[in-house]
Amino acid sequence: MSDDLTRDTILGGRVHLWQPRKGYRAGVDPIFLAAWVPAKPGQSVLDLGCGAGAACLSLAARVPGLSLTGLERQPLYAALARRNGAENGQQIEVVEGDLAQMPEALKQRVFDHVIANPPYFRRDRSLAGPDAAREGAMGEETPLADWVRAAAKRCRPRGYVSFIHRTERLPELLAAFDSCLGSLETFPLIPREGRDSQLSLVRGRKEGRAAFRLHAGLVVHSGPVHQTDGEDYTPEALGILRDAAPLGPEGR
Amino acid sequence: MSDDLTRDTILGGRVHLWQPRKGYRAGVDPIFLAAWVPAKPGQSVLDLGCGAGAACLSLAARVPGLSLTGLERQPLYAALARRNGAENGQQIEVVEGDLAQMPEALKQRVFDHVIANPPYFRRDRSLAGPDAAREGAMGEETPLADWVRAAAKRCRPRGYVSFIHRTERLPELLAAFDSCLGSLETFPLIPREGRDSQLSLVRGRKEGRAAFRLHAGLVVHSGPVHQTDGEDYTPEALGILRDAAPLGPEGR
Repeated sequence: MSDDLTRDTILGGRVHLWQPRKGYRAGVDPIFLAAWVPAKPGQSVLDLGCGAGAACLSLAARVPGLSLTGLERQPLYAALARRNGAENGQQIEVVEGDLAQMPEALKQRVFDHVIANPPYFRRDRSLAGPDAAREGAMGEETPLADWVRAAAKRCRPRGYVSFIHRTERLPELLAAFDSCLGSLETFPLIPREGRDSQLSLVRGRKEGRAAFRLHAGLVVHSGPVHQTDGEDYTPEALGILRDAAPLGPEGR
Repeated sequence: MSDDLTRDTILGGRVHLWQPRKGYRAGVDPIFLAAWVPAKPGQSVLDLGCGAGAACLSLAARVPGLSLTGLERQPLYAALARRNGAENGQQIEVVEGDLAQMPEALKQRVFDHVIANPPYFRRDRSLAGPDAAREGAMGEETPLADWVRAAAKRCRPRGYVSFIHRTERLPELLAAFDSCLGSLETFPLIPREGRDSQLSLVRGRKEGRAAFRLHAGLVVHSGPVHQTDGEDYTPEALGILRDAAPLGPEGR
């Protein structure tokens, strides 16, 4: 089996991650997501669609003493998340199941934080890929509004729901958040100075009443174009991705 | 009457504007709004709640040969808009009336562009001001979604609806745009480097099908705090406010 896996290092060596060589592999998105979650030591976190555990483990590397739970539909990734937890000295309670039919094990529970990095591509708008596991992680079978509703239901009063998603889905995502959460905030990730945002972080607070906030965002890459395969991250992005810095001046 | 009015200069002397000394007075908002409207020479523009005509005249100063129409509820501002049009060598057809009961004169017509700078404060959340005219311009009697619906109805197929509003209303505004327009775009105005956006420009295209775009936005003021009464605009903001530059690299 291990031939089909790679062991990757993220967050400046703070996290080691076994991942399928092919199929869905974590990029920087779960690391940015983790940097955006306002978790305090000792709190509980549920990751909807936890994959191999990249977001959970990135968050645990920043904030000590978290209680980590992941919901994952695909057994391969569920097993990897458990294994990756153990390898990083963290216990991730991984529940196999689908958020569209929330497993009984989770139905009675609420968490301080619910986080998600939902699939980015709509099945009805993209061709099915050759790799079934990758397709399951990337393709979108469950409507985005259902992800948000499920997250809000599993969030305790005054707790937070934090997502990362493609910016082009922001109108839909904000509408879904607005229908069941308050104190909405958006933090755009800007690929290069002056370019349109491609990814956005969104969070809401259950029973929150504050006005919507649009943060100025973070420029991820420096220079006008991607020159080489080497790193061209901005110092601010590197701080988050490698040094586990928080996101933005008030990110935490 | 003229004692109650001031004659102001905006857009680097390109536009002169009679405005009430007290009451609602145009700030930079209508100038940014005008810079965000993708109007081409000879097109028609309807400004919902045109006030004294600042947005219409700023747009006309950038784009030649526009046909300008304004809807204004308050007779004082309607008269000022006509007068300001004449003083600036532009004819603004000003219709007195309320967008909640669209006047017959406008009901049968559509425009290439519909623009609006709706009142910013919700009446149910703010105290009534002492100045009735200012209150009428600043207080919000008509729900924001009604502004967007009215604008979309008066917009021709493939035409554009462009608004400026407080960023904290963005979730509501995008939802309203999303319900009757496509190809949504948001351009945040960022007061100072790294700060939350306070004002946002939003546009949609009737029958548009493009994905939502979140522009990186524009930083309006330089330096960390407002130091003096003097100008501390960034060069980019000054270009727009004084030199009639377009908004952003692809603003037009």
